[in-house]
Amino acid sequence: MEKYTEIRKAAYDANMQLPKLGLVLFTFGNVSIADRKLGVFAIKPSGVPYEALTPDSMVVVDFKGKTIDGKMRPSSDTLTHAVLYDKWEGIGAVVHTHSTFATSWAQSLRDIPIYGTTHADHLTADIPCAPAMEDNMIQGNYEFETGNQIINYMKWKGLKYEEVEMILVGSHGPFAWGKTAEKAVYNSAVLEELAKMAFLTEKIKPGAPRLKESLIRKHYERKHGPGSYYGQQ
Amino acid sequence: MEKYTEIRKAAYDANMQLPKLGLVLFTFGNVSIADRKLGVFAIKPSGVPYEALTPDSMVVVDFKGKTIDGKMRPSSDTLTHAVLYDKWEGIGAVVHTHSTFATSWAQSLRDIPIYGTTHADHLTADIPCAPAMEDNMIQGNYEFETGNQIINYMKWKGLKYEEVEMILVGSHGPFAWGKTAEKAVYNSAVLEELAKMAFLTEKIKPGAPRLKESLIRKHYERKHGPGSYYGQQ
Amino acid sequence: MEKYTEIRKAAYDANMQLPKLGLVLFTFGNVSIADRKLGVFAIKPSGVPYEALTPDSMVVVDFKGKTIDGKMRPSSDTLTHAVLYDKWEGIGAVVHTHSTFATSWAQSLRDIPIYGTTHADHLTADIPCAPAMEDNMIQGNYEFETGNQIINYMKWKGLKYEEVEMILVGSHGPFAWGKTAEKAVYNSAVLEELAKMAFLTEKIKPGAPRLKESLIRKHYERKHGPGSYYGQQ
Amino acid sequence: MEKYTEIRKAAYDANMQLPKLGLVLFTFGNVSIADRKLGVFAIKPSGVPYEALTPDSMVVVDFKGKTIDGKMRPSSDTLTHAVLYDKWEGIGAVVHTHSTFATSWAQSLRDIPIYGTTHADHLTADIPCAPAMEDNMIQGNYEFETGNQIINYMKWKGLKYEEVEMILVGSHGPFAWGKTAEKAVYNSAVLEELAKMAFLTEKIKPGAPRLKESLIRKHYERKHGPGSYYGQQ
Repeated sequence: MEKYTEIRKAAYDANMQLPKLGLVLFTFGNVSIADRKLGVFAIKPSGVPYEALTPDSMVVVDFKGKTIDGKMRPSSDTLTHAVLYDKWEGIGAVVHTHSTFATSWAQSLRDIPIYGTTHADHLTADIPCAPAMEDNMIQGNYEFETGNQIINYMKWKGLKYEEVEMILVGSHGPFAWGKTAEKAVYNSAVLEELAKMAFLTEKIKPGAPRLKESLIRKHYERKHGPGSYYGQQ
Repeated sequence: MEKYTEIRKAAYDANMQLPKLGLVLFTFGNVSIADRKLGVFAIKPSGVPYEALTPDSMVVVDFKGKTIDGKMRPSSDTLTHAVLYDKWEGIGAVVHTHSTFATSWAQSLRDIPIYGTTHADHLTADIPCAPAMEDNMIQGNYEFETGNQIINYMKWKGLKYEEVEMILVGSHGPFAWGKTAEKAVYNSAVLEELAKMAFLTEKIKPGAPRLKESLIRKHYERKHGPGSYYGQQ
Repeated sequence: MEKYTEIRKAAYDANMQLPKLGLVLFTFGNVSIADRKLGVFAIKPSGVPYEALTPDSMVVVDFKGKTIDGKMRPSSDTLTHAVLYDKWEGIGAVVHTHSTFATSWAQSLRDIPIYGTTHADHLTADIPCAPAMEDNMIQGNYEFETGNQIINYMKWKGLKYEEVEMILVGSHGPFAWGKTAEKAVYNSAVLEELAKMAFLTEKIKPGAPRLKESLIRKHYERKHGPGSYYGQQ
Repeated sequence: MEKYTEIRKAAYDANMQLPKLGLVLFTFGNVSIADRKLGVFAIKPSGVPYEALTPDSMVVVDFKGKTIDGKMRPSSDTLTHAVLYDKWEGIGAVVHTHSTFATSWAQSLRDIPIYGTTHADHLTADIPCAPAMEDNMIQGNYEFETGNQIINYMKWKGLKYEEVEMILVGSHGPFAWGKTAEKAVYNSAVLEELAKMAFLTEKIKPGAPRLKESLIRKHYERKHGPGSYYGQQ
């Protein structure tokens, strides 16, 4: 249907960024983009190689996870995306990858400590790692519960999704989001780089200290605070 | 002979995937593809650089390892491929590489533990590492015995080749297989990525726990089980 | 204004080297180039993706940090560059990146020890890591104070900016400089490689010794001493 | 002079392989190729970026290190190459790089242990690491003595240059050689890969055992022994 042409094209473009940024091997990732007015999002079809994707192959799904339009089966992670859109009204795009370093931290079941200003340029908290899911959640509506796990862990940690736009799901891998697809993909790549730097920092100096609070605030505020002076707006 | 044109072309194409996927340096790898009706497989010639390969240069060999057609000497690992085709009737392609991380695990003589869902998306077991071979096997028909080592270790571990499509041969390197060349090459790249992530996981968290059983089952089943919902079939 | 055309073009060209050399992700870096006669430098605008940059978008700033010419806001690190030009009369270009290994050392708050002749080919000292800045400096004129931190730490260590053309700012990342933009970018890439090699050296041999003094002197002198015989001059 | 056209072209081609194989950053490497009949070798000029090289810029030098023909100054490592050609009559090309992993082992002052068959496919010994040079050698004719250090350490270890075509010079970096330029460059890339795998092996399994003798012999013999069956000759 023509009313979905635009988000399909945008979802296609965003998905194609993942292999270019080195964030996915084969089909190990997916991006979705929401149209808040229409109450739907477009997402990558399940298990289709990136080189075979077209804008037309993107599947349109509503925020309860019901397929609205599309010839193919949507990503197996679709319900996770749906829950995030449903609960977090301010997000416009969701990215899931199995990028190497972020996934390795998720497998380690550890938050990624904030060790430097590169991290603080993007968020003031450690990157949260939600615990691996409980057996009843896994055996139940697994992907739906993955979304709940993300939302509940953010809440439990006292983190706002507008400020912390990335998380690890323990034993699984990273999710990122943002107002736009561009921002969500950007967050995904930033997360991978922060994961790599934190790994190296701990190897170079076991017991390296967390970044001091004054630097955390300064770097975050200069980019995101009321008197921010980074960027062109 | 014209009846081999198709598998030669397919074997050529599959071999050319290896350098593109970063799985081989120089000539350190080989792919073969079987034609079960003809009872033969086509394999890369020995020691020929990838840029000099042509479909025509692929060597056709039967399941006992006898060269049936071809101008060049087949890969020195040919007998290993032959044994796998001979014993495992369901496989259609075999890939051997010396990819960096998988080979390093093989040199460490350790199984690669299952640490996350990326692993469980592909197999429910640790990736097996067969012991380095015994001296009499090495001094005997070495490549033939390498095939036997693979088959015997899978058996000893209670693993089915249809479910675990990859193995490390201790002190040597990885082998992967599958019903099709595409799947076998895919498995080869997946193995390398799982090897890298497992390495990183252990460095980020020494003593990281194996993935819990419920997640192993869930991720494997959603992709490979009777009610699978990953992909388009 | 036409009198800035040349340094704008040079600054643009130098900035575009950073992604090619793998030293930046997205906008995480900036190069500036000075025109000593005009008493200004041209620097990358803040937060603009590399693919959107043009020579014309470079911002011209004086050595006190005042924007002289340009349509966009200059890099948020502009005052740091300004201080370096103001205090160190012999430098013609400054580069700041968040390159992976150098930043990880900065996050570790450690000097990078001189472990080999690759290092000695470029400098005779460990690569200094200035301490993370004091709270009053952070809450004050932060980027200006970052420049002072660099200059003061070099002085405190007894290092000359003409001989040691690179530094880490603790918890933040690397800065490099040189007489020309080409040299400053070169130093930036060399620093990243030295950071990587030093990391690996310590992992291969915990407690590896610093390079012996005679080799330090020899390698540095053959490239930079009065009787140097490296290169074509 | 026209009689050097061929080795100049060959030396140029071989030098240009180094950046393609990821073995050099900027000008950190050099290849030379000998013409045994003319008693000379062609080598890269000193400090010239790869993109500025031409066949014509290669410098022709005799086996005592005297420049015979060429407009530029030869590589600062020229005397090391000269000594190797002078003492080892069977070699036709020499490669020196500062490739990342091999150099890090050199900085660690450790031989690279033989951990797998990838190593044994190329040599049966640990890759030797000559000690850092003595002060009098460094202060004397340094590059000449570097050549002697290589030759003497090989002798002291009981290694033949025809069989072990690579070495690390402690605190400095790798050298490789071979009958042809193609082989010497190949050895250089193999050394870097073996260095990386050995690093990873020790991280995956501290105290990993050396490869067993029977596998060392088997893999080396099948490629290099009298009954070798690897490759097409």
